[in-house]
Amino acid sequence: MNKKNKKVNAAILIIGNEILSGRTQDKNVAFISNWLNSKCGILVKEVRIIPDVEKTIIDNILLLSKKFNYVFTTGGIGPTHDDITARSISKAFKVKYEFHKEAYEILEKYYGKKKFNDGRKKMAKLPKNSRLIYNPSSAAPGFIIKNVLSLPGVPSILVSMIENCKKYLIKGSRVHSKTLNLYTVESNISKKLGQIQKRFKNSVDIGSYPFFRLGKIGVAVVTRSTSLIKLKNINKDLLMLAKEKKIKILKI
Amino acid sequence: MNKKNKKVNAAILIIGNEILSGRTQDKNVAFISNWLNSKCGILVKEVRIIPDVEKTIIDNILLLSKKFNYVFTTGGIGPTHDDITARSISKAFKVKYEFHKEAYEILEKYYGKKKFNDGRKKMAKLPKNSRLIYNPSSAAPGFIIKNVLSLPGVPSILVSMIENCKKYLIKGSRVHSKTLNLYTVESNISKKLGQIQKRFKNSVDIGSYPFFRLGKIGVAVVTRSTSLIKLKNINKDLLMLAKEKKIKILKI
Repeated sequence: MNKKNKKVNAAILIIGNEILSGRTQDKNVAFISNWLNSKCGILVKEVRIIPDVEKTIIDNILLLSKKFNYVFTTGGIGPTHDDITARSISKAFKVKYEFHKEAYEILEKYYGKKKFNDGRKKMAKLPKNSRLIYNPSSAAPGFIIKNVLSLPGVPSILVSMIENCKKYLIKGSRVHSKTLNLYTVESNISKKLGQIQKRFKNSVDIGSYPFFRLGKIGVAVVTRSTSLIKLKNINKDLLMLAKEKKIKILKI
Repeated sequence: MNKKNKKVNAAILIIGNEILSGRTQDKNVAFISNWLNSKCGILVKEVRIIPDVEKTIIDNILLLSKKFNYVFTTGGIGPTHDDITARSISKAFKVKYEFHKEAYEILEKYYGKKKFNDGRKKMAKLPKNSRLIYNPSSAAPGFIIKNVLSLPGVPSILVSMIENCKKYLIKGSRVHSKTLNLYTVESNISKKLGQIQKRFKNSVDIGSYPFFRLGKIGVAVVTRSTSLIKLKNINKDLLMLAKEKKIKILKI
């Protein structure tokens, strides 16, 4: 593998009826994806949102863990009947679903022996041989087994735990990005943009995204590459394009 | 099929590197999902977010269109080089990717003959025999072919078009939901909740979701069912549970 351009990828599996039904707006995809790329050089290649259904979880865990270097799951690791992520992953990997000694101790200490009821104990049941992802905000740990990392669904708790995933991850090359905000419409630059993309076919990705700002419409042209030099070069071409077409640039 | 409980489902396929990379926060999943359930009685069963890669789009279109009654795609129907949804769906269904007469006329009229350049013309190229989903905000139409409906990625434009999807959809039974906000923690009610869920196993889904409000923590217990009577009955049981455990209820 070329060390200068080491590709490591991941999938995110959001487990939860509340996201699928539209009741809750997911925020974890954008957060995990940004964090993985900026801190670990890992690119998210696919996201799936699925219901709290055991067979669906098992099928997706098996498929995604084969297809990608890492799988991050969110949701379904709390104390209630609809929290079936740990049990389902155990079944997927055909390992026992049992009390994890350290997780049990952490939770017992956190709640106190008297208040450590069945629901809370359930959060210490993990796939056998899981390693823990510590949770500084509400104790109940996440876990990693094989290449699957399981995190909670509540965004504030997930955010507090994410740095504890790092030690389990192999880093890839970071993808850098640059955004050029042009006061124009996509169809005015689409032809030229296609030509520029062709020239940088294997080294830079160009995306273009319409925006509205203070009543004016524009296009954010986003370039992404593991090479800072290529990124610099393509942005020279983009500035030239803007100049040719007399397009104003929005500085933020 | 039991007319009183007609199950119609859908998948959402979000196409776009900008969502996968975390640059853009998706808002379309929650919107489409809510709209489909409340206006059409259609339940979203799976969401996938994938990159702007032709083969990936084709594979997912073929798989999801077989597995679900409807597939909604968002993104990739604009004028630029990375907008490849219509072409990819044409390839998936092995139909020609060609100018759609009415779409061409709509766009030519909207931009005016002189300003109707190649990028804009591209937005009139659709899978052969597509029917249009009209766009009241920026003219460029979405389209439906077989059971796949393609909408744009920009949320405000998508929202303006959604009602125009209705005539192509078969309605299902609406799933009603009720939320009870309890000032407690999940682990305090998880056992009882599991018992109640068992009693309503095939008729009501219970979900429980922690919340934080004005410095207090609580649990939103969400019940969902096509039957209003079952929903009423289960909520009686939940109120009893709250009374037994002396849990305060948050009225919103």
